[in-house]
Amino acid sequence: MVFQVKSIGTIRTPYKDIAPYQPIENDVGEFKVIIDPEYEDGLKELNRFNYIYLIYYIHMVKRRLSMLVIPPWSDGKEIGLFASRSPVRPNPIGVSIVKLLKINKNEIFTSGLDVFDGTPLLDIKPYVKDLDSKEDANYGWIEDMKDKEHLILHIKGIPHEY
Amino acid sequence: MVFQVKSIGTIRTPYKDIAPYQPIENDVGEFKVIIDPEYEDGLKELNRFNYIYLIYYIHMVKRRLSMLVIPPWSDGKEIGLFASRSPVRPNPIGVSIVKLLKINKNEIFTSGLDVFDGTPLLDIKPYVKDLDSKEDANYGWIEDMKDKEHLILHIKGIPHEY
Repeated sequence: MVFQVKSIGTIRTPYKDIAPYQPIENDVGEFKVIIDPEYEDGLKELNRFNYIYLIYYIHMVKRRLSMLVIPPWSDGKEIGLFASRSPVRPNPIGVSIVKLLKINKNEIFTSGLDVFDGTPLLDIKPYVKDLDSKEDANYGWIEDMKDKEHLILHIKGIPHEY
Repeated sequence: MVFQVKSIGTIRTPYKDIAPYQPIENDVGEFKVIIDPEYEDGLKELNRFNYIYLIYYIHMVKRRLSMLVIPPWSDGKEIGLFASRSPVRPNPIGVSIVKLLKINKNEIFTSGLDVFDGTPLLDIKPYVKDLDSKEDANYGWIEDMKDKEHLILHIKGIPHEY
């Protein structure tokens, strides 16, 4: 079964050639979502949320799809694609959680994003406390990594010097 | 810009005619995702995560798209579509966070889901502690509701008697 989805806006980031693996909350540069004017009314009250989900089409992927992947910093460990956040997926749909900074008409300014400039936006949803913030979540296979604490800094995009 | 996405599996739930507004963690019945056999290798190590994201195509929506919506239990408050979790969206892409119970070959058994039986699966991603569990998230416009505590029970799908 095949379905059509459409761009409802564009994500603007400083990333033209390389992008971080995950959103970096304190990333430097301007990150914003420009939603097509016909959808602007749909943003009413969105500014009350401090985090939002951006759902987008990962348009810049060139690598070949593989069901097994070796994530960066995984020390060569091979895992299934669905146990990873690899952008090379059967459906290249990305989900990023970002801080909402301000909304000005049809422009939504956010904290750092992990996508290339020009990424087509598919949807925005509010991130709701309790509903989405699972306190008892775990790190999955990352727990096995001998360098787990270091790896988690990478995962969270926290700058560090070692 | 229009893109094509495809079903990579099917979500099975007890819901044929009505479904809850949000996943109910202790919901009664069998909830599972059957991924097409060609993608089964992609599940390697997924069982190490206690929560996962399911991304799916909301195929049963019949209502008309509107940029302003009045969510259930919002006491008549009108908000923008993107500040809501309404299933009637420009792109009917749903995201649900569920507990992963067990994986048996290409079948993933989960906690309660808020989708109709037969919903087409688009993607599975691991829910990673810290990365996805934002402790400082808020309730957005729900904070204004005079019956906030009660509303949050509804949002979380917690059964209650009043």
